[in-house]
Amino acid sequence: MAFINKSDLNKFKKKAGDLFNKTIDQHVNLAVTGLSRSGKTAFISSFVNQLITEGGNSQLDFFNPVHQRRFIAAKRVSQKHLHIGRFEYEKSVAAFEKSPPTWPEPTHGISELRLAIRYQPQDSLLKYATDSATLFVDITDYPGEWLLDLPLLNQTYEQWSKQTLALLEQAPRFEHAKQFIEKVNQIDPLVSADENMLASLAQEYTELLMYFRHQLGLSVIQPGRFILPGELVDAPILQFIPFTNFNCIDGNSYQNAGDGTFIGMLRARFIEYKERVVKKFYKEHFLHFDRQIVLADCLTPLNNGAECFDDLQLAINLIMESFSYGQSSLFSRIFSPKIDKLLFAATKADHVTPEQHSNMVSLLNQLAYQTKHKLNYDQIEMKTLAISSVKATLSGKGKHQGQEIPVIQGRQLHDNKLITLFPGAVPKRLPTKEYWDKNGFNYINFSPIESIEAHQSLPHLRMDQVLQFLLGDKLK
Amino acid sequence: MAFINKSDLNKFKKKAGDLFNKTIDQHVNLAVTGLSRSGKTAFISSFVNQLITEGGNSQLDFFNPVHQRRFIAAKRVSQKHLHIGRFEYEKSVAAFEKSPPTWPEPTHGISELRLAIRYQPQDSLLKYATDSATLFVDITDYPGEWLLDLPLLNQTYEQWSKQTLALLEQAPRFEHAKQFIEKVNQIDPLVSADENMLASLAQEYTELLMYFRHQLGLSVIQPGRFILPGELVDAPILQFIPFTNFNCIDGNSYQNAGDGTFIGMLRARFIEYKERVVKKFYKEHFLHFDRQIVLADCLTPLNNGAECFDDLQLAINLIMESFSYGQSSLFSRIFSPKIDKLLFAATKADHVTPEQHSNMVSLLNQLAYQTKHKLNYDQIEMKTLAISSVKATLSGKGKHQGQEIPVIQGRQLHDNKLITLFPGAVPKRLPTKEYWDKNGFNYINFSPIESIEAHQSLPHLRMDQVLQFLLGDKLK
Repeated sequence: MAFINKSDLNKFKKKAGDLFNKTIDQHVNLAVTGLSRSGKTAFISSFVNQLITEGGNSQLDFFNPVHQRRFIAAKRVSQKHLHIGRFEYEKSVAAFEKSPPTWPEPTHGISELRLAIRYQPQDSLLKYATDSATLFVDITDYPGEWLLDLPLLNQTYEQWSKQTLALLEQAPRFEHAKQFIEKVNQIDPLVSADENMLASLAQEYTELLMYFRHQLGLSVIQPGRFILPGELVDAPILQFIPFTNFNCIDGNSYQNAGDGTFIGMLRARFIEYKERVVKKFYKEHFLHFDRQIVLADCLTPLNNGAECFDDLQLAINLIMESFSYGQSSLFSRIFSPKIDKLLFAATKADHVTPEQHSNMVSLLNQLAYQTKHKLNYDQIEMKTLAISSVKATLSGKGKHQGQEIPVIQGRQLHDNKLITLFPGAVPKRLPTKEYWDKNGFNYINFSPIESIEAHQSLPHLRMDQVLQFLLGDKLK
Repeated sequence: MAFINKSDLNKFKKKAGDLFNKTIDQHVNLAVTGLSRSGKTAFISSFVNQLITEGGNSQLDFFNPVHQRRFIAAKRVSQKHLHIGRFEYEKSVAAFEKSPPTWPEPTHGISELRLAIRYQPQDSLLKYATDSATLFVDITDYPGEWLLDLPLLNQTYEQWSKQTLALLEQAPRFEHAKQFIEKVNQIDPLVSADENMLASLAQEYTELLMYFRHQLGLSVIQPGRFILPGELVDAPILQFIPFTNFNCIDGNSYQNAGDGTFIGMLRARFIEYKERVVKKFYKEHFLHFDRQIVLADCLTPLNNGAECFDDLQLAINLIMESFSYGQSSLFSRIFSPKIDKLLFAATKADHVTPEQHSNMVSLLNQLAYQTKHKLNYDQIEMKTLAISSVKATLSGKGKHQGQEIPVIQGRQLHDNKLITLFPGAVPKRLPTKEYWDKNGFNYINFSPIESIEAHQSLPHLRMDQVLQFLLGDKLK
């Protein structure tokens, strides 16, 4: 029998405990979202690229495992769910390798990618136990529009219809939605439903949503699945609309209307949508996420004017409901999520001059202010950053009327011409009406600035801070 | 207290029991399948059209409820599953209403439609109890290719690979598959897998399958989901191939190969495909079907020659495995289906002259002979019919070298020209080699012959017998 004294035994137990804690902390599920065209594909491509090519020309000073030289290597390995699309990393990176480089094709729906990161742990015990440890990172990419649907779960069909009508009756939507509202108002909601008419009305409503999103640049698109139907194309579950004439029915008739009536069918499909589409996403995916990145492009809505910007603010509030799961929130009454860190990133930071970045962050903070407040309270760690996943400009100094001013240089997206300019200031706070009246914004869209070689790192702004916030504590 | 004697009471009990049996017998799930381009869309459109327009110009003499004047009316009502695509009946019928009429667009994947049929029951008791009864018919349309996958459930990855290789090494596939096989043979199956290479090999294999189906007219396409991926597009579950070089690995290395190796990854994905794709379809859909229609176009494979025809025969045998659920069958070991009637219909009967129809049925019976035998044994009622869902020709008599011969008249599909001809005989039995050497087939494809008015019935051949077989006993 070996000798061991009590104090040694306790030490050993503690170390064994540490080791155990360390060994189970080997996996993290990262979710990346953002409204369409917010730069999800570029973000994920750069995130993966920085890790995979680390040791080449990568600039990751603020990512501790690299700074402390404990980072060994990262590689893509087989993803967790074989029935989910593969994030097409190689195709995206190929776009940046072209000459001239282009932005990668955007993703639709949901896709996955798994990384294995080998590193040397700080912890001396583990260091002796093994030369390296591995952290597996599962990245899930999904449309931000899906999060816009969460609030539906707390609404009846009547409430949702009325709220949607209120939105449709305001500028800039009203002008385009007017005809649709008039058409719906002519329907007797208590007669037997005509499914073909409903299908064509739903088609019309979907086209309105597409127009709002892609032509007007609006952000609040409900139901979110209508514009990205995937396998549900042509299914009745996506063939409903908000009823715009609730004033014409009394509560009793509404309650008693059968599923075969126009209004009853709309209600039944709305309920089914909540169950089969909204809840399903939260149960099958969202509840398994550990950390979430929400990307927001604030510059385009600023370009588009006050109404679009307000709409972005509303959309962000709706999206943030998925993360504000205090005890009394809608969310925690329905689900028990486990997200402990939320990164809220303003993309395209390279599209303005560097001294504007603090304004971008401050604006983003304001946009998410209420939620951030709640999140702090609930002890979810939230961070806001102004980033550029893949830098499209160079910054420098120029002369304007004898004065030195900050400028950026890049190739304009629409004609590929190299231009140098000061693209304008970013407001530090949510712009007021007076501000909008006096100022306009005209940020330019740029192409990626120069192609990279194979296995080279993509130029970026603050991706190292992103990595540190999301992975730093898991790589200690 | 009322007087009632024992005999009256017994009579009453019996009648109440009959009534009960009748009232619960108010619903039937019909499934319609067939390999792509076998005429599923036209079939379902006509099936629904005959019922909905009954009482107009419809010809349904062999459908008892109509013949006995007990059929009241039928209409489309809301389908059962809101998340499944709606069968686009109206769009299909619109194609037949155009001038000149066209064939409707084919469906992809799965779609649904529900009919409510009102009728007067034969049973006197129910006749007194109520003026009419309603039978709900749920029709599910799904690709026949999905049934080709059932046999996979009984195979290991190695068995499936070897069997597929045997198929690929025969004419007419070999010539096109040669390069693919050579490429796969150069891979060391035990090295670590490259997922991108696998994705591109799977893409190549899928293109081969597409070519086999659409250019060569072959029927045995495995895995069936590869050519109709739906929501699984880009998912690793569809990124595997048959490994063509099993001779190069010994059994031990194969068994011990990890999931990260080339061969291990193929095997893992094959297993996941069986679970997540094949079994899922059977569980979620197939097990709920009461009656099945399998459509087969025998004329096109006859046109295409011996190899295509043999391939059709093999495909039909594979498809029929889903219905031959005797105690020892693969199927009944995995599932407990409840299909009690199977209609096996040769489509395009109007593309040959009427006196050839008995040969068509006889040929079809031979194609499915083994299965039919088994089915009878298992007491599933099976029927074979030569039908035309929507008639494209008129039949009559013509003169040829002084003799009266049967002819058909129709508009050729490729140039819309009206032609009159005797399209040739249909072999009564599976053609032998000698037969193929001596004879060729050249059946013509026709457009629908003339457009119908709205609410008019589509011209057909034997759709009334189809209705009688599938619904007659439910409408007594």
